[in-house]
Amino acid sequence: MREVAKAAGVSVATVSHVVNNKKGARIGEDARRRVQHVVAELGYRPNALAKTLSRGTSRFIGLVADAIATTPFAGQIIHGAQDEAWKHGYILLVANTESNAAAESEAIAMMLEHQVHGILYSTWYHRGITPPEGLEKTETVLVNCYDLDGGYPAVVPDEYQGGRAATAALLAAGHQRIAFINTTTESPAQSGRLAGYRAALEASGVPFDDSLVFPASPQQEGGYASTDGVLRTGATGVFCHNDRVAMGLYDGLRERGLRIPEDIAVMGFDNQDVIAAHLRPPLSTVALPHYELGAQGVRLLLGLESSTPDSPQLIDCPPIARSSV
Amino acid sequence: MREVAKAAGVSVATVSHVVNNKKGARIGEDARRRVQHVVAELGYRPNALAKTLSRGTSRFIGLVADAIATTPFAGQIIHGAQDEAWKHGYILLVANTESNAAAESEAIAMMLEHQVHGILYSTWYHRGITPPEGLEKTETVLVNCYDLDGGYPAVVPDEYQGGRAATAALLAAGHQRIAFINTTTESPAQSGRLAGYRAALEASGVPFDDSLVFPASPQQEGGYASTDGVLRTGATGVFCHNDRVAMGLYDGLRERGLRIPEDIAVMGFDNQDVIAAHLRPPLSTVALPHYELGAQGVRLLLGLESSTPDSPQLIDCPPIARSSV
Repeated sequence: MREVAKAAGVSVATVSHVVNNKKGARIGEDARRRVQHVVAELGYRPNALAKTLSRGTSRFIGLVADAIATTPFAGQIIHGAQDEAWKHGYILLVANTESNAAAESEAIAMMLEHQVHGILYSTWYHRGITPPEGLEKTETVLVNCYDLDGGYPAVVPDEYQGGRAATAALLAAGHQRIAFINTTTESPAQSGRLAGYRAALEASGVPFDDSLVFPASPQQEGGYASTDGVLRTGATGVFCHNDRVAMGLYDGLRERGLRIPEDIAVMGFDNQDVIAAHLRPPLSTVALPHYELGAQGVRLLLGLESSTPDSPQLIDCPPIARSSV
Repeated sequence: MREVAKAAGVSVATVSHVVNNKKGARIGEDARRRVQHVVAELGYRPNALAKTLSRGTSRFIGLVADAIATTPFAGQIIHGAQDEAWKHGYILLVANTESNAAAESEAIAMMLEHQVHGILYSTWYHRGITPPEGLEKTETVLVNCYDLDGGYPAVVPDEYQGGRAATAALLAAGHQRIAFINTTTESPAQSGRLAGYRAALEASGVPFDDSLVFPASPQQEGGYASTDGVLRTGATGVFCHNDRVAMGLYDGLRERGLRIPEDIAVMGFDNQDVIAAHLRPPLSTVALPHYELGAQGVRLLLGLESSTPDSPQLIDCPPIARSSV
């Protein structure tokens, strides 16, 4: 500001008044124009930090994520949160903790020191958590997780609706005997997708049959290992807990000479980027709405939309039709 | 600070002296202990922003990345950069631009406003770039890309060494007739891996044969489409430009009843998380050192290691042996 004042031949106070558009300041048109000209020439920007100090909170929103490095999903949460934050003039401070408690506590302390407007706390898979200490010192919204004690607003995917949509896609293609390869990991995804699967069957008048549900590790190896069990049931369609499971099942079915979807239809979940669209045949699946979770988290944090006080806010998992059903 | 002073029954100046360990300040042991006690109790932290203002630069390092959302690689660059930044007391400000010029320019301006110590500018695939304006106003290190005009220090993967290591793994397993499915995208990966492939062959006394090199789109579809061409050459081993290409080739080979590695050996590149270890059989590959690129970028930025002035610094791509060779 001093530089600008010198170059424009006015006082620092005058520069400040012009730059901050102070109402009621008596500044001549000539001086105002000189200041604006010099500001444009020198590329002067009001100091963001000085503004923060005088206001007491910054234009930062913190995002604490547990697995940026090990999952492609985190990227979409960051992307959605950042787009929404920028739209409203906020900057996203991202910290990666890889589930390390010390790193997490350090990240939260750093964000509080920088007087963030609030913190989004996110996990890479949807689950109930006990939020770490420190979050109570600022506005907090949980993203892709929820407080087991219900203390914080949260936004999570609608696992039930997603499981229902996946099963409905198989039913709509004429399948009645539909197997479900579910994860062995206890989680809202495990129970929610199962409940959705049951509900879709029941809505179509197909009785639920427990022997069609196969617990498996939620990756390629789990899908592959389930192949024989699934085939023994005579199922003509399979809903897989996620796309990685579907990818493993593809391998198992192909080894047995079966064609997808002619001999057996396969439905995934996640719409995982490097897999789903590139399997042979391309995988029909249900998308996890990570971008939307990040964006909605910011909207809740900024009070642009109100949260549901007693339960997490649910975001739809839209079905993506490709060629495996 | 006012709260601390009140609770400890001392002046604000005394608190400031104790907290900042001011030398030469005459403060009684008793007052000092009272202040320290209250500080511990209230969890007082010196204001990070006020410190930055008085110092002129912050403890921030900016990271501008072009594709956080669409590639799992970005996560590893962030992870490496963050770990290294935190180790030295710096905080990473991450901005995602999705290759949008306006978002990029906004991200850089925001970082400059927050008086970052410097900026890491990174791309999701290794390439030559013309760095955007604004970077010249702070310390800048390019990560996974390099300045076509040579103006900035840079750190990139050693594609030549990686291509050589991949080919050497096939040679070591006894293969002499080795096909290379290369990308159609002009890039340091395209030329560097090819040069490494040639060098490894020549070092083993195997003449380079241009008809063994297949240009293909660098994803599953490209690998699948290359299957017949590769088989016609009588190659017993195939080096694939990346793991996605290898995944598509797997599909093509299996459809023709060929076993990996018994009938034909396959080597990937990237060590992509959700794919490489989970193919059947698990894919032998070469790892792109994204974590190390991020970490080394921070070390160059902080002057902890010196950059090579005339060319980008190269980071090794280590081979990962699994079961496909």
